[in-house]
Amino acid sequence: MPKSEVETLLRASLPEHCLIADAEGMRPYECDGLTAIREQPWLVALPENEIQVAAVLRICRQHNVPVVPRGAGTGLSGGARPHAEGVVLSLAKMNRILEIDADNCIARLQPGVRNLAISEAAAEHGLYYAPDPSSQIACSIGGNVAENSGGVHCLKYGLTVHNVLGAKVLTSDGEVLQLGGAVLDTPGLDLLAVLCGSEGMLGIVTEVTVSLLPKPPAVAVLLAAFRTVEAGAAAVARIIAEGIIPAGMEMMDALAVRAAEQFARAGYPLDAAAILLIELDGTAVELTELVSRVQSLVRAAGAYEVQVADEPAEQQRLWKGRKSAFPAVGRLAPDYYCMDGTIPRSKLGEVLGEIEKLGEHYGLPVANVFHAGDGNLHPLILFDANVPGQLEATEEMGGRILELCVRMGGTVTGEHGVGVEKLDQMCVQFSAAELDQFFRLKEAWDPAGVLNPDKGIPTLTRCGELGGLHVRHGQLPFAELERF
Amino acid sequence: MPKSEVETLLRASLPEHCLIADAEGMRPYECDGLTAIREQPWLVALPENEIQVAAVLRICRQHNVPVVPRGAGTGLSGGARPHAEGVVLSLAKMNRILEIDADNCIARLQPGVRNLAISEAAAEHGLYYAPDPSSQIACSIGGNVAENSGGVHCLKYGLTVHNVLGAKVLTSDGEVLQLGGAVLDTPGLDLLAVLCGSEGMLGIVTEVTVSLLPKPPAVAVLLAAFRTVEAGAAAVARIIAEGIIPAGMEMMDALAVRAAEQFARAGYPLDAAAILLIELDGTAVELTELVSRVQSLVRAAGAYEVQVADEPAEQQRLWKGRKSAFPAVGRLAPDYYCMDGTIPRSKLGEVLGEIEKLGEHYGLPVANVFHAGDGNLHPLILFDANVPGQLEATEEMGGRILELCVRMGGTVTGEHGVGVEKLDQMCVQFSAAELDQFFRLKEAWDPAGVLNPDKGIPTLTRCGELGGLHVRHGQLPFAELERF
Repeated sequence: MPKSEVETLLRASLPEHCLIADAEGMRPYECDGLTAIREQPWLVALPENEIQVAAVLRICRQHNVPVVPRGAGTGLSGGARPHAEGVVLSLAKMNRILEIDADNCIARLQPGVRNLAISEAAAEHGLYYAPDPSSQIACSIGGNVAENSGGVHCLKYGLTVHNVLGAKVLTSDGEVLQLGGAVLDTPGLDLLAVLCGSEGMLGIVTEVTVSLLPKPPAVAVLLAAFRTVEAGAAAVARIIAEGIIPAGMEMMDALAVRAAEQFARAGYPLDAAAILLIELDGTAVELTELVSRVQSLVRAAGAYEVQVADEPAEQQRLWKGRKSAFPAVGRLAPDYYCMDGTIPRSKLGEVLGEIEKLGEHYGLPVANVFHAGDGNLHPLILFDANVPGQLEATEEMGGRILELCVRMGGTVTGEHGVGVEKLDQMCVQFSAAELDQFFRLKEAWDPAGVLNPDKGIPTLTRCGELGGLHVRHGQLPFAELERF
Repeated sequence: MPKSEVETLLRASLPEHCLIADAEGMRPYECDGLTAIREQPWLVALPENEIQVAAVLRICRQHNVPVVPRGAGTGLSGGARPHAEGVVLSLAKMNRILEIDADNCIARLQPGVRNLAISEAAAEHGLYYAPDPSSQIACSIGGNVAENSGGVHCLKYGLTVHNVLGAKVLTSDGEVLQLGGAVLDTPGLDLLAVLCGSEGMLGIVTEVTVSLLPKPPAVAVLLAAFRTVEAGAAAVARIIAEGIIPAGMEMMDALAVRAAEQFARAGYPLDAAAILLIELDGTAVELTELVSRVQSLVRAAGAYEVQVADEPAEQQRLWKGRKSAFPAVGRLAPDYYCMDGTIPRSKLGEVLGEIEKLGEHYGLPVANVFHAGDGNLHPLILFDANVPGQLEATEEMGGRILELCVRMGGTVTGEHGVGVEKLDQMCVQFSAAELDQFFRLKEAWDPAGVLNPDKGIPTLTRCGELGGLHVRHGQLPFAELERF
């Protein structure tokens, strides 16, 4: 069906201000946080309620028009990249907080509610919503569900999937599903967990129920500086082995520390090979003990300087460096490429050493800023897109870093999703049987295949063309069993 | 295909001691923990390795023979009830602990490893596996994955799904899938979460990777006694609202307290309308503070007696009453029926009052022993199957209790699964669209439909015949949207 007819149908179902069809108006929707990849869609629909979402889905299903759902557009892997002959379905106008139920510590939200707005609304009850992606000022809970977002505090408090209790979902097939609810466990197959991290491929979330946590009574932030990256990695392992789960545990290497310090004046030691920022929370009594234990542990692992920030102002200063690390590193080179892989914690030192070698091999500097506690790396490769060949070298090196993560028993994404960015690396991570199972699952939700097509899961043809990439958690494939 | 031919094929693929075909030998496999429902299968296969599991699945797929997977057979909802013309696939012989990786706090296990054996093996590293269903001496990790088992400690440490990092799965369709891995997040659709709680309907788990936790350095157990059930429920709410997550928080009502005390001599106050058992853990310093805060909170909620057990022997005494509560209550009447529903915590007092009224209406006593912290109720209905009509009345009352849970915003099962027991209640919990989505998901894994058929998900026909049961979280159905 031609664009003009789809537009006519949508105009009949949506208020005028809920449909954008002109090139200028659609410009902001051409990409998400992965700005290198742009596309202009046919149309952008911004429904204001569930009935309107259902209408958009019905029209697109009946006429086989791709639908690309979009939250706040802060995603980093291109999951919201428009389809050239499709409709972008933005949930931004559905941004009401429907209920804060303080007795049961839950909040019911429309998908467009901003992540930070949840905690702001819950604050009067002494509650907050734990997952805090660094885009939390802007990103929406619907997008968080789609990407299964993490954040600094997911070490202790879990990813989105661990904090979402229920969701109402419209499928492209015309079904309305109420998944999960207000309690922890729910009978039947766990459709809610599949939805978390499904990158808009399965259904459109029109309501989300999340659990809220009581705010910790006291917080402390420690900075520990090390002469080697390996010593910092050893400190992380020691803390976890002691049964201490910090609210957050972030690591920055020398390049990141120096960049952040010049940018934010956070008081970081400029001679450190690595620093750890460790946030601890609990009651005042607990905290006193925790701070003292963690201090001993990092000293024993080789920290030559330890700062403890008890006051909010000092804590903010220490965090400011970490939070501005990406833009700070960005000043060191015309361009940077932020990777997102996960490895078992015990491999931290080894993997960082390998990344350094890769950087030398490709002649590209790498800064490392990452969630050390859960092994989620964010290497930032610095390059200049105007130097012929550097973009290609950067992308190749990025791919090799992710393959290294898989070989070490890790994964090709920690919290940024697959989108369009990591389709090739999915061929490294998964076997043909596993990718096929993903497609089957998608088809069970979206038989027409109109929801965010060509995202998240690479076709077997694509993987075949890449050839020889299959590493499988560092093990050989199950030769005897492969398709038994 | 007739039984004899299937037997011939299986004999050719399995060692002789891995196939049971005689009635006497199959007797122990006629039921699981739901002993009221029995069936003799055609055959029982007990493969010793993955290749043999694959062979059983291939033969059954090719000849369309139902396969009923079985762990230790301790399930309470009949999930492992045999099919009269099918094969029971027991994973009991695959019971090796493949690896304890203390550095990364993970264990790799075959599916037949007993739950408690994991913690026993991890103990030398100061680690343990947190989920602890009351059958943990006998039940297996494969069965725990199938049922998404909980236990006393799941309030603080989560259900099985929160503690399983990876699984290797064979599908009936001949695929080998490696789901998840050794790190928290994994890209792609979350097939592992769907597998947890799928009751053997999707695939056969041949390997499980779980996370291990450091043993808490110190533990205390508190007993608090209340004059009313409502006061006990209020104490639960206050503790959680303060941000305290006890390792376990169990409630018993008057009937359960008296039965347990007579049986176990645990030192429970016989005049209590309800008692709470609260386990707290942490470092010694943390614990001192926690115990004092919880004592104040329960006193403020109306506790008239509080006991604190610091020593292991005292703690075991207090827990002994709780752990023997089911058999103890069982002595009060010839039969009892153990229910398993979940409600939002804030509704505890109200729901217990309604259950009492139902008991009066049906003339059947009810004892309540349950995981109060996460709202997971276990009402035990006492009856005498030899009195005509009492079994039927009990089953009807049980159904009404579960429907009450759904009306209150809860669910029809907390941790025992659906199996064959709760198929009717699933019609109350879910809409036709949701049940249809479950079937689609099952078909995406098991297109031939040979894996544990007729379990877990009721057919729409069955729900239609029950009629009028649809309650939907206490809300009206989405009339405007239903199939848009």
